[in-house]
Amino acid sequence: MTAQIIFGIHAVENAVKSGQVTEVWILRESKNQRLNKLKQLLDKSEVNSHWVAPADLDKLCTEKHQGVVAKVEHLQIHGEKQLKEQLDTWQNPLLLILDSIEDPRNLGACLRSADAAGVTAVIITKNQSAPITAVTRTTAAGAVDNLNLFQVSNLARAIETIKQAGVWVYGTDCSERSQSLFQTDLSGAVAIVMGNEGKGLRHLVKEKCDHLIHIPMAGEVQSLNVSVATGVTLFEVLRQRL
Amino acid sequence: MTAQIIFGIHAVENAVKSGQVTEVWILRESKNQRLNKLKQLLDKSEVNSHWVAPADLDKLCTEKHQGVVAKVEHLQIHGEKQLKEQLDTWQNPLLLILDSIEDPRNLGACLRSADAAGVTAVIITKNQSAPITAVTRTTAAGAVDNLNLFQVSNLARAIETIKQAGVWVYGTDCSERSQSLFQTDLSGAVAIVMGNEGKGLRHLVKEKCDHLIHIPMAGEVQSLNVSVATGVTLFEVLRQRL
Repeated sequence: MTAQIIFGIHAVENAVKSGQVTEVWILRESKNQRLNKLKQLLDKSEVNSHWVAPADLDKLCTEKHQGVVAKVEHLQIHGEKQLKEQLDTWQNPLLLILDSIEDPRNLGACLRSADAAGVTAVIITKNQSAPITAVTRTTAAGAVDNLNLFQVSNLARAIETIKQAGVWVYGTDCSERSQSLFQTDLSGAVAIVMGNEGKGLRHLVKEKCDHLIHIPMAGEVQSLNVSVATGVTLFEVLRQRL
Repeated sequence: MTAQIIFGIHAVENAVKSGQVTEVWILRESKNQRLNKLKQLLDKSEVNSHWVAPADLDKLCTEKHQGVVAKVEHLQIHGEKQLKEQLDTWQNPLLLILDSIEDPRNLGACLRSADAAGVTAVIITKNQSAPITAVTRTTAAGAVDNLNLFQVSNLARAIETIKQAGVWVYGTDCSERSQSLFQTDLSGAVAIVMGNEGKGLRHLVKEKCDHLIHIPMAGEVQSLNVSVATGVTLFEVLRQRL
């Protein structure tokens, strides 16, 4: 991961919205309405903001900064093409596919568990997924920068690619009709697909999976938090592989 | 769990602070400074608040309500005495002991996993633990009202009581010196102790445990979120028992 300085109201605004900004320096006093609107956005965000004098901004950035300079952390996220290329190089991979995880904290906790369980790569969907924000990074406890991350726009197609590389794809599903996680051999090359917090796996994604599995439950509550379900599933894979 | 109506500024204020209030009706317009201070507290909380006219309040409560009426949910939480009594009645119990979990969301997710894994009872420490707030209840997805909950002030003593009832107590510990979760027979009467998010198990609590166990890790990150670790451990117990 590399840190980069960006500047200008529009660029900073977009980067804040996409959750890539870690720190902002903004003009303390200004009559510029757009700059003041950006201040409101920053107030609502969890970005580390500094309200500074013009001279301080000029020191940070010699360009035409329009009153605002920000530090962004660029994640190394690969696309479908790199996924296809790398798939053939992995020996007995364990892949985690996160389909439309909406909550940044849940996403962070899933990534932390993925790293701890030693996954080969994590594949995240482009749409309907939480962006990797400062909150995600904090919850992930550093995992964001360790993991081999891929982002794909067409998950059904990506699953096809993964299957063609000889990896068995297991979708997790709350229904008891699917097979028990504990009675499934997951010691080979496998990909685990976790669905959205509320809706679970999308229909088309479910159809593409080789098998559906569930975590057996023994109480009243019939589902787990997605990050807990991810942890339980990944560590069962790890247990079988140890 | 039973719902109860309480009233009066002080009572409501205390109940809001302890996280037991689910809904509040408060006088829309008032010059009473304490009432307005309570409004500020409510604004910052996640309590469902209604700002109403005097006649509406009088309909809810015929007592001297001082401008505020609240609905509280009383949790059925037992103490050490009941724990001792009930211990002898349980057949092959699975107990979860949460030692000083500070974050209400983590506590809620732990309780949800405990319910889903079919634990017999959960024992929570009185001090340094998050109270069971509205956030905890939401995260626990209903588990709070299903579980057999105990709260103890002296955890070391409670562990002694549990051990005397023939239950083996396993403390979770990040260090690799402890034995692997996956190589531990947890199919009998067991209690699993989870420690604080940052600090882990307290020294005295650790000393009281029969054994220390850890979840083997295979990545860079060497620890899990406490609710994920709780889930992984409890579902490994469930797996061994199925």
